[in-house]
Parts: sequence; structure tokens; C-alpha cells
Amino acid sequence: MSENVLNYLAENRDQLLQKLNEFLTIPSVSTDPVHKKDIKKAANFMEAYLNEIGFDKVEQQDTGGHPLVYAEYNQAGPDAPTVLFYGHYDVQPVDPLELWDSDPFKPEIRNGRLYARGSSDDKGQVFMHLAVFEAFMKTEGKLPLNVKVCIEGEEEIGSENLYKILHDKKEAFQADFAVISDSGMVAKNQPTILYGLKGFTGIEINVTGPDHDLHSGMYGGAVKNPIMALTQILASMKNEEEVITVDGFYDGVEPLADEERELIKQVNGEDYKEATGINETASEKGYTAKEHTMARPTFEINGIYGGYQGEGTKTIIPSSATAKITCRLVPGQDPTNIQQLLVDHVKKHAPASVKVEVVKEKLSAKAYKVEPNHPLIDSAAKSYTKAFGKETVYVRMGGSIPVVEWIEDIYKMPIVLLGFGTPEDRLHSPNESFPLDSFDKGMETLVYYWNEVNNK
Amino acid sequence: MSENVLNYLAENRDQLLQKLNEFLTIPSVSTDPVHKKDIKKAANFMEAYLNEIGFDKVEQQDTGGHPLVYAEYNQAGPDAPTVLFYGHYDVQPVDPLELWDSDPFKPEIRNGRLYARGSSDDKGQVFMHLAVFEAFMKTEGKLPLNVKVCIEGEEEIGSENLYKILHDKKEAFQADFAVISDSGMVAKNQPTILYGLKGFTGIEINVTGPDHDLHSGMYGGAVKNPIMALTQILASMKNEEEVITVDGFYDGVEPLADEERELIKQVNGEDYKEATGINETASEKGYTAKEHTMARPTFEINGIYGGYQGEGTKTIIPSSATAKITCRLVPGQDPTNIQQLLVDHVKKHAPASVKVEVVKEKLSAKAYKVEPNHPLIDSAAKSYTKAFGKETVYVRMGGSIPVVEWIEDIYKMPIVLLGFGTPEDRLHSPNESFPLDSFDKGMETLVYYWNEVNNK
Repeated sequence: MSENVLNYLAENRDQLLQKLNEFLTIPSVSTDPVHKKDIKKAANFMEAYLNEIGFDKVEQQDTGGHPLVYAEYNQAGPDAPTVLFYGHYDVQPVDPLELWDSDPFKPEIRNGRLYARGSSDDKGQVFMHLAVFEAFMKTEGKLPLNVKVCIEGEEEIGSENLYKILHDKKEAFQADFAVISDSGMVAKNQPTILYGLKGFTGIEINVTGPDHDLHSGMYGGAVKNPIMALTQILASMKNEEEVITVDGFYDGVEPLADEERELIKQVNGEDYKEATGINETASEKGYTAKEHTMARPTFEINGIYGGYQGEGTKTIIPSSATAKITCRLVPGQDPTNIQQLLVDHVKKHAPASVKVEVVKEKLSAKAYKVEPNHPLIDSAAKSYTKAFGKETVYVRMGGSIPVVEWIEDIYKMPIVLLGFGTPEDRLHSPNESFPLDSFDKGMETLVYYWNEVNNK
Repeated sequence: MSENVLNYLAENRDQLLQKLNEFLTIPSVSTDPVHKKDIKKAANFMEAYLNEIGFDKVEQQDTGGHPLVYAEYNQAGPDAPTVLFYGHYDVQPVDPLELWDSDPFKPEIRNGRLYARGSSDDKGQVFMHLAVFEAFMKTEGKLPLNVKVCIEGEEEIGSENLYKILHDKKEAFQADFAVISDSGMVAKNQPTILYGLKGFTGIEINVTGPDHDLHSGMYGGAVKNPIMALTQILASMKNEEEVITVDGFYDGVEPLADEERELIKQVNGEDYKEATGINETASEKGYTAKEHTMARPTFEINGIYGGYQGEGTKTIIPSSATAKITCRLVPGQDPTNIQQLLVDHVKKHAPASVKVEVVKEKLSAKAYKVEPNHPLIDSAAKSYTKAFGKETVYVRMGGSIPVVEWIEDIYKMPIVLLGFGTPEDRLHSPNESFPLDSFDKGMETLVYYWNEVNNK
């Protein structure tokens, strides 16, 4: 039964890639207001494609922010299971633009990879699902199960409005299980079941000193330097052994079990040095880099700025300095509580001679962990293996997908994370790309999976 | 004899201010290549004015960088003393432009102050000298002493090429003493003799980690964050008590004598909080803010940047981070040696997991101190007091003027620092301004001084 569907995908590969390129050409950057029109354009593209496939009640739902594209297919009948498929059509900013080898919004194939912002996160993977649905409709005239499609435009800015909608539409969106393809495999062509995700929280620190930039000769020695104050605060939050030194940060974190350390050791992941160009990894004292990225909380300064950044020197004491911080959390850590601990630490270490303001990042998420041997997870592993011809590995990852926590929280249904990205995809970075292998075998996996699920 | 000259200045005040405005309208920012034409324009303005006044052999000397404007007046005869007058026609950058209340290059008078970049540092003060020379020529038909004028265009970028010229032109530029007006008074209308200046050195620290920005979820825990590495290095260079913790930094610094502390205490300087908007001063443990700014070395981070600086969040580990640092030095500290100590400290504290490069700032200067009771200083104090109607105070200041050290070093002649700026001038900052009181009484001071010197 999968035969025809797979043949259709093979025969129409070029047209499908062409269509995906159209989608990737739309610069749907959700964080930047200048791209509001493009966001709308991407939503329209999704809506049109879903109609073309033959979904029922396709619509753009008003979220107060960027629209949510919703669609249903109910013709598989009451006995067939219903899946809620989630994805997002918005993308990360592209700066620094000069580091891209090709235009982020002019998709280009180079040695087996499709280069474009969103090719992996998440437009490419969303498109694969729709293409597979198209293939089923065009060959079998129907889908093997009932489907509710939910594609948002605010994932990269924290899915701010989605949470409320998931609540309000509880009845409408209810399904037997959810499937999300917004993650990756531990290595190219290595089937990977993601059974754990990290939580997330963040703050921004703004330090203000003098009400204008000062001549360092006239005021150096009388005025606290805001940049120095900021660096002293930041340096007090993590030590040279990569241990986060914020009081209470690790409270409640479940210790890493020996079995899990064993599992992690077995994961034949990427070579961090090779993938990033560093000469030496740096991870929390007592943990390997793999253990830290997969199962231990992290603290990162995402950006910092203050004072003179131009050519040459400018002998000033700047009037202010800012740093953006985000943390990845593990089970046992409450995002709101951790965020408050960060604020308290900063306030406690703020010198009286400067004004220190801490802005709480709105986006937050609890960590997530699912039972690895759930039948739906099991079918996913089988389908993966069948398509990629390789045993499936089970891992936890450092990324955060707030919607996963929310769906679990609101719908109490199992969530299957079917990710096809690879560690080399450069998500959120210049030269984001997606391997065509993942494109082909990923769709094959989905074809097997939908049939598997239907025959359960 | 001063009468006519003073009357001329009074009667022609408007025209002189008009001419000064023309000069200030030229955006002669020396650090930025896009302003090369404007630098040339400012040099031409100086050249034209010197010719108009009646100087001999007015010329623009090629420095390899921005031209040096030179002129001589020798008609005071062999018995009259010869002064070397130094100033600069280049200015600091104006960013952040949005913080200016009026266009930095459209001079504007508001409540007794002339607002424009360079109005105080140093175009305004250079112009005062030329205006006084004009007044002498127009009224007395001659100047009271022989003058060598030396106005450069690279002071704000470290007078890079001036040093070599001062060497090569040793004979040509030789004089009995030098006068420089590129500094200020401790308070508005408070005659101030500057008998000490700080030295100067600087470095730039570039920290590089991964070869591209990384997804903090996928690599957080495996890769050292370059911004965190930089803040840890910076925080290790100065402690919360404003003590610089770089090994050997204070070696050789002459202790602050009780008499000098007394002298400093008597200086009725500005209110730091009022002038800068801070709620509390911060100075080296064991020293008052005034003592630290005037007589103790300083360490300032002038600028820092790395990672995401835009709106919203971007959950990355950035690939690099940079900080610009400058130090003000006191007698007993060798700039080259201190600079090396900074480099050594950074290298010693650089984590192996990132690449840390330290760039040595080319600009450097030794600290300077002159004998307060030298007759030429004494005449200056008298002229100040006569013009401002107030006793002159003697101070050391935190600013650095490399040329002062070089002139002393090469020409071994006394240097008189006749500054008319005020603490509220906002040098190097948005809304730089210069009080018209200083403009008028400053020129009056110069008229008295040249006559005083001539009668010695």
C-alpha cells in the first residue's frame, strides 16, 4: 500500500523541491516587524497548499499576533486514529548576513544539501509532512488517519499567542496523539527518537551609570564603569569549571542515573570540535560534553553590548551596557522559579554605584520527558529504521520546544517527536541547510509511520 | 597697551563667533576615513585664517596622515621670546548621534553655551588663540612675541604622525616655551593651572570560540561561550573596590603625598553626581573620587560587543566577543610596560577552550608633571586671575595629551597648559559645548599673558 505513495514522491521529487523553494523564498522572520507582510505571505502559502491537498475547513486563525494556519481531515472515519500535527512557518533572523555563502532566501542546493533559512527549522520539515499527505491523496485518494494540522508563525519568538489558543480550542484540537517534526537526529541518516527536551527561561540585564558617555580622563576614578559592573555580575553567575553559581539553580535537578549515562555514551553523536571549529570542548565539571548538552541545565550569554564599537579608540566611560541571557532547563527545574533566582542573583551582585534593571524574558518552558517504549514511539522507531536502514537510537536533547510542554499539559496526549534535521544544519546561524537524504528518507519514514499507526 | 586689543575683541565679538561657527561646521572626525575630505577642509580653514592674520610661511605639512598646519611669526625681533603654540583641528566621533539635542556640526548657542562637536576640544580653544593674534595685528600691527603655530589633525587618533615630525623638525619648531590650550578648568570661571597630566595606554581583546553562531540548545554544555570567557577575563582585571588586579600594575607609582592630598582637597571642583547623573561615586579603595581622577591610575572598558544585539531573543552561543580597554597612567608607570602587563594578564586568564587575541593600542603616553612655580606658569596664573577676577588653583588632571610628553621629551622646554574648558563641556560625548564666558575671559587671559611674557 505504501508503494504507490512512495513512487509518487519519487516521480514528483523535482516539483516538490521546486514548491519547497517557493516556500523558503518567503523571508518570514517573526521577530522583526518589517517582515509582517512576509509572515502573512507564508501563512497564505500554507493555507493554499492545504486546500490544494484536499483538507477540510482550512483557515487562518487570528492569534493577536502572527496567524495560526489550521486544517482538518476527517474522512478516515471514526475508527481511524486522529493525529494533531504541529509545525511552524516562521524563521529566525539571518544576521550576520555577510556570513552567508548564498542568499538565505534564495534556496540553493550544494553537495546534497538545501541551503536556506528555514530549510531545517522548520519550514522544510513542515513541507515534508504536507508533501506526504499530498502523495497519499493523489494515489490512495485518502489519508490513512484523521489529521488536525496546526502550523504557527511565532515559534521563534516563543509561541507567545499559541498557548492561549491551545487552551481555547481544547475541544477542536483534541486528538489521540501529536506529531512534531521540529528537531533533529544525532547524526546524518541516524534514526533518532527524541524522548526528552530541555526547558527554557531567560533575562536581559541593563546596567546604567552616568546619564551620558564620559571622558575617561576627566571621570575615570569617580564613576563606576557600567560595562565593568556588568562583566562582574555576569562572571559571578558561572565559574571557570562551567558550574552555574546562582544560588539554588541546581535544586531539584534529578541526578543523572548510571543507566542514562550509559545510554548517552552509546549515542554516536557528532564530533563537537569538527562541527563547531573549537579546539577543546568545555562542559560542567563532572560531566562529559554529551551529558551536559543532553541532560544537564545550561546558562548562556546570547549577546552583550555597551560603549564604543566603531573603528579606532574612543576613551569614554559609557553610560550603559546590556546583556541577554537564556538558560536551558532539565526535569525538576521550574522556569519561573529559576528566572526569579537569576533576577535575585543579579540584584544581589549589583553595585550601588550603577542602576541595574533586569527584564524577565516572556518565553519559558518546562523540560519534557516521554516514556521511550510507548507503542506510538515504538512504531516511529520501526518506520525510521525501515526508511533509513539503520537501528534507531533514543536520546534527550538540549533544545526547547515550548509547545511540547503545553500540548502535554493541556491535552494529556502522547507526543511523538519525529525530527529529520542533522547536527550540521546550522539552525539559527548563517548557512542553515537541510540534507536531501533527510528530505527523501524522512518522507519515506512518514509514509510507513502513518500506515503503521493506522494498522494498530 | 592691552586696551585696544581687548576693545577689538569686544567690538568684533559677533564676527569672531560667526567665523568660529564656520570652523565648527566642518565635521573633521579624524578616526573615520569617510571624513578625510572634511579634515582637509578644516586644515585649509586654519591655513587661510593664519594667512589672513599675517603669519609668515604658512603651510600644510604632509605627515603621511592628516596634514599638520604650520605657521611662523618672527617680526617681534630677536630679543622677544618665541612660543610654540600647539592645538588640533580634528574632533571625536559623534555617535550616538540620537543623543544630541542639536546637530553636532550646526553650532547653536543655548543659555550661554556654544553647542557643537569640537567647541571645547579643541577647535574652540585653538580659534581663541588665532582670534587674539588677529586682534594684536589689527590694533598694534604686531604680536608681542615671536610665534610658531603647530595645529595637527590627528590628536583624537593618538597624534600618530606628529611624534616623528616633532623629531624631524627639531630645529624649525624649537622655541623658548610651549603653550597648549586643550584642557579645562576645575569649574566654570575658576582659573586653573594644570601642572600634571596622566599617561595613557590601551588594548583590545578579541575572543573567538566556534566558527559560527551556535544553537544554544544543541551546543550549550559542550562549547565555551566567548562572551562568558571575555567577561570572566575582564572581571579578573579590577575588583569591586575599584582596585586594578593586574600583576605589577601599581609598581613604581609614587605614593600620594599628604601635601598633595591637601592641595586636591582644596580644589573646589565639580559635583561628580550632578555632572554625570550618578547616585554614588566609585573610586579606588583608600582614595577619594577627586584623588583617584587626578592622581591615581585608572582602567576603563570603553566598549564591548558580541552575539545578538537586536530586538527580542536569539538563543545562540555567539562565535566571538570583543572589548576595548584604555588605562590612564601616573608618574612612575611606563605605558609600554603597563600595556605588556595587561596583555600578559589576559593571556594568563584566557581559557584554553577559546582563542584569545590581544591587540596593542598604538596610542600611548607617559604621565607629565611640571614645576608649579616656574615664572612662565606664574605669569599664566596672574593673567588668569586678572581676567577671571579669581584666584588661580593648581591641579593635576586625568586627561592625557601625548604631545605634552613628546615636546618635553624632544625640546626640553617648559610647557604651559592654558585650558579654558569646563567640566560641563561633555568632551567626547553627545552635546559637547563651551561656555561663552570662557570664550571671552579666555581671550582676555591670553592678551594679558602675551604682554606679561613679553615684558619679562
